[in-house]
Amino acid sequence: MEETIQGLQIGIDNMWLLIAGFMVMFMQPGFAMVEAGFTRQKNTANILMKNLMDFSIGSILYWVIGFGIMYGDSIGGLIGSPDLFFMSDGFGDNYADYADLFFQTVFAATAATIVSGAMAERTEFKAYLIFSIVITVLIYPISGHWTWGGGWLSQLGFHDFAGSSIVHSVGAWVGLAGAAIIGPRLGKYGKDGKAKAIPGHNLTLGALGVFILWFGWFGFNPGSQLAAAGTDNAVAIAHIAVTTNLAAAAGAVTAMLVAWFRYKRPALSISLNGALAGLVAITAGCDAVNPVGALLIGIIAGFVLPFAVEFFDKILKVDDPVGAISVHGVSGALGTLAVGLFSTSEGLFYGFGAKLLGVQAIGVLAFFVWAAGGGFILFTILKKLKILRASKRVEEEGLDIYEHGEGAYN
Amino acid sequence: MEETIQGLQIGIDNMWLLIAGFMVMFMQPGFAMVEAGFTRQKNTANILMKNLMDFSIGSILYWVIGFGIMYGDSIGGLIGSPDLFFMSDGFGDNYADYADLFFQTVFAATAATIVSGAMAERTEFKAYLIFSIVITVLIYPISGHWTWGGGWLSQLGFHDFAGSSIVHSVGAWVGLAGAAIIGPRLGKYGKDGKAKAIPGHNLTLGALGVFILWFGWFGFNPGSQLAAAGTDNAVAIAHIAVTTNLAAAAGAVTAMLVAWFRYKRPALSISLNGALAGLVAITAGCDAVNPVGALLIGIIAGFVLPFAVEFFDKILKVDDPVGAISVHGVSGALGTLAVGLFSTSEGLFYGFGAKLLGVQAIGVLAFFVWAAGGGFILFTILKKLKILRASKRVEEEGLDIYEHGEGAYN
Amino acid sequence: MEETIQGLQIGIDNMWLLIAGFMVMFMQPGFAMVEAGFTRQKNTANILMKNLMDFSIGSILYWVIGFGIMYGDSIGGLIGSPDLFFMSDGFGDNYADYADLFFQTVFAATAATIVSGAMAERTEFKAYLIFSIVITVLIYPISGHWTWGGGWLSQLGFHDFAGSSIVHSVGAWVGLAGAAIIGPRLGKYGKDGKAKAIPGHNLTLGALGVFILWFGWFGFNPGSQLAAAGTDNAVAIAHIAVTTNLAAAAGAVTAMLVAWFRYKRPALSISLNGALAGLVAITAGCDAVNPVGALLIGIIAGFVLPFAVEFFDKILKVDDPVGAISVHGVSGALGTLAVGLFSTSEGLFYGFGAKLLGVQAIGVLAFFVWAAGGGFILFTILKKLKILRASKRVEEEGLDIYEHGEGAYN
Repeated sequence: MEETIQGLQIGIDNMWLLIAGFMVMFMQPGFAMVEAGFTRQKNTANILMKNLMDFSIGSILYWVIGFGIMYGDSIGGLIGSPDLFFMSDGFGDNYADYADLFFQTVFAATAATIVSGAMAERTEFKAYLIFSIVITVLIYPISGHWTWGGGWLSQLGFHDFAGSSIVHSVGAWVGLAGAAIIGPRLGKYGKDGKAKAIPGHNLTLGALGVFILWFGWFGFNPGSQLAAAGTDNAVAIAHIAVTTNLAAAAGAVTAMLVAWFRYKRPALSISLNGALAGLVAITAGCDAVNPVGALLIGIIAGFVLPFAVEFFDKILKVDDPVGAISVHGVSGALGTLAVGLFSTSEGLFYGFGAKLLGVQAIGVLAFFVWAAGGGFILFTILKKLKILRASKRVEEEGLDIYEHGEGAYN
Repeated sequence: MEETIQGLQIGIDNMWLLIAGFMVMFMQPGFAMVEAGFTRQKNTANILMKNLMDFSIGSILYWVIGFGIMYGDSIGGLIGSPDLFFMSDGFGDNYADYADLFFQTVFAATAATIVSGAMAERTEFKAYLIFSIVITVLIYPISGHWTWGGGWLSQLGFHDFAGSSIVHSVGAWVGLAGAAIIGPRLGKYGKDGKAKAIPGHNLTLGALGVFILWFGWFGFNPGSQLAAAGTDNAVAIAHIAVTTNLAAAAGAVTAMLVAWFRYKRPALSISLNGALAGLVAITAGCDAVNPVGALLIGIIAGFVLPFAVEFFDKILKVDDPVGAISVHGVSGALGTLAVGLFSTSEGLFYGFGAKLLGVQAIGVLAFFVWAAGGGFILFTILKKLKILRASKRVEEEGLDIYEHGEGAYN
Repeated sequence: MEETIQGLQIGIDNMWLLIAGFMVMFMQPGFAMVEAGFTRQKNTANILMKNLMDFSIGSILYWVIGFGIMYGDSIGGLIGSPDLFFMSDGFGDNYADYADLFFQTVFAATAATIVSGAMAERTEFKAYLIFSIVITVLIYPISGHWTWGGGWLSQLGFHDFAGSSIVHSVGAWVGLAGAAIIGPRLGKYGKDGKAKAIPGHNLTLGALGVFILWFGWFGFNPGSQLAAAGTDNAVAIAHIAVTTNLAAAAGAVTAMLVAWFRYKRPALSISLNGALAGLVAITAGCDAVNPVGALLIGIIAGFVLPFAVEFFDKILKVDDPVGAISVHGVSGALGTLAVGLFSTSEGLFYGFGAKLLGVQAIGVLAFFVWAAGGGFILFTILKKLKILRASKRVEEEGLDIYEHGEGAYN
């Protein structure tokens, strides 16, 4: 059948959105490998199971209820009206309704999966399932509604292109609340209160995971252009691919240099997290900054990362086995603020004043209050119900055997 | 050069088909990691070698002969006329002939690779090469001809959109014949006849493999729309992406719940296979059922899976190290039948009577008879020739050293 | 907004180039897993770090300077005029300038990463960073300028479609110079001068890496068509996908058979490298040969590979832990020459005389002289500066702990 120009345009935009969505879905094994690699062998089946289940439960429940809360008709700019069990073979402006649902689903699953890293190695599996559900149907979609759903923050002019704050910081701040409330792993802090390093069991998996995430991020960021037909979209997504890649690279190199100076060794684990920090940070402004801005954002994120990790680990004494709070939370906030500085069309450094920076700060703060606050209430309830933390014996011998009846390795 | 509308349409459809094909090709490491992870360390190089070789030999021989048998001019609806060493830089309706060949090749390789899992840890490598060839040039292309090649089953109205039966069940039923004829691994059944669990050596690899397969399935199912230009195709492939994802998610969650109730533990290995079961089951009807139907198909597949595994393991005493027969065979058959129930345009539950269900049942039966029967003949011959099973000593000490001269780990 | 035909064409071509570029970027974990798997456990963090850093530093410096040297206005066909910190939101013939930059960046990173394999397990990390930089900003872009940049070799009619020589051989010849100058690993050659096999620590990683590379190669080769809109491009990229896949398959099968006859065992490690040899070899002529030619090129590459490995290992006594020199250098040269024989439009075997073959030979020689020569100078300087090789103690105990302060496994 001979197509029309409009039909071709829909085909192109839809294909782009779906392929980008597939790549974002593929970030799941990236997260799984990073989190498994950075934790101990005795908890590997548990962490893999958490990753499998947050994507599975998330995919179902975001479709059942989350999507509507995020994108349904707005109730005062705060929350959407749910459209349970969303079903529509129609299409919106440029792509099929289901393409939209799919793309949003894989983003929601990303937010949920970040939490499992921060709370690894001591959380009861049942509790994990419960808070995974709450994040997917409530915490993430509501903050998503404020921005991508057209809510109050988007009306202020807040700029978070692909979700430095909306996806990454939200996941991380929930994780911060969780890691703080559940307390550190046994043996993490000595009797003198000093933090001990508990090395992960397999950095090869960690490196594989980071490379997978880096690849998937080319779905996450360029995909968020949501369209590919026409010169403007072509230029935009190519621009985003370049800024995304440069920030990741700069994050890795900078974190390595900091480790080299500060710890006398260019450590792999820190460099890997530096790449992720750069990726998280550029996500908000990948469309709005030029390559030099992207490089600087990556440098900032990579520089701050090791200090952020130390701050949570040694000062706040919040035990985050994989560094998720620093990588996704701190870098997400930095990246969101950086748009106010480096945006070539609205940023302070390009002569547009501090207006956008102010709005970005409001957004960063709002997401922190909402996600950390929501997480605080949620985890406090789970703690009171005594289902949050695995028993001492289970934690010592490993969650794998006790919680799941099988170890990952034989 | 300024293109025409038709040229653009061809470009879009061809790109879609090829990218989807690349993703299906990428299912190969998915299968390799799942099969390696679920088996023992001493046979890892062997299983990886099998996977490498079935894809390699399959790619060559499907081009040399299989493609023609599947898609050549039909001889009575039963078999195509081979066009040896297919070469054509022309193009068909919407895409280049070579794009078609490539897409079909990666599907054929999927069918072949399923068998290696069911027969893992005791099959002689030489025998494996032989039956891999037979599957690629004969068993798979002939059953493929019955349906996608325009043969008798397609004329009956059989609906297997992306190959729940055509690809997955066919591979599994050949594997069933093979696993039954070759007999169980040493030590699998005690003197009392009781089945013993032989845990795989690395569930992290297993989880990585399942996530890779899940990702690749978005090439397998949405790619089988074979075109992406125009609103209708855009809507269809987005629809398929959503149904595919929901069934996989439902399969994982349901299998976990069954394990939790039945074995008191939410086991990772069963949940991973549950995701695969959901993916296999939705493959036949991903285009024809709505998201609620997809959810229910995933639930059915995930629910039946642990019982199917037990049935083959404990009742039939067929030793299938990775659960391939249940995951690909049983789920494939269930999914094919489910189209007769859940198809919104032809299904029993939507008021269209049992006609399609009947045709689906005929197809399921026909594929079982053909693949299990063909496998039975094939493996019986190999057994008579005494080249099917590795010697007791080789099996005990591991196939890696004896068959391949090197272990996977040092 | 209603698009124009030209806008759609730009959208299609740009999307194709970027997705292909993403897939080439994804070859990085492929290289990382191959190199880690084929080397010893004590040096795993080091090799992963090298891979992370050559991609990171390469991404930055190719943008800063390399891209301009490769594609800037030609100075006598030898070198381009650098355009430092390339920034342009414009677009060229069919795609955005940044899409071009991105695609070229991931190719440059591929060349750089090959070197780390040949020099694995004894190179000081600092030296690695230095020569990684030199390759990315100088050695690779200059040889790239000679061909893709429109320089003297392209004016001769040299045909290297996607970089058998330009990318793979260049990386390998630099690695050859490096491996020769740095000398073999401790214990590699006995007192009698006999080469000892030092097996890698994890062939599962090796196999995963090869499958990832195989997948990524569908971005590397078909992506190098640089456009996807229109019938001609559709036919070309489908053609390239088929020839690429067949050569890889033939390389794997042939290398397996050689190992089987020569070493009495179908070894996994050799078969994996056979697949890579086929992929490297077909890269030059994937567009110009037909599937039979591709099969033969794969067979040649797979056949020569084990002998090439033996030649460097036993005759030249150059210690190349992962076989990179044979896989990328020898196969790349063979594949480049093979275009002169098998090209259906210019090749000797198709009645077009030896003209192209002569030009191909000139190119192969030129790249060898340039890359091995450049590498020789570079590594000689590093050796004189005494920063090339890790100390004996560090090498014995592993680079991971001493150079990076952490092992990959715990």
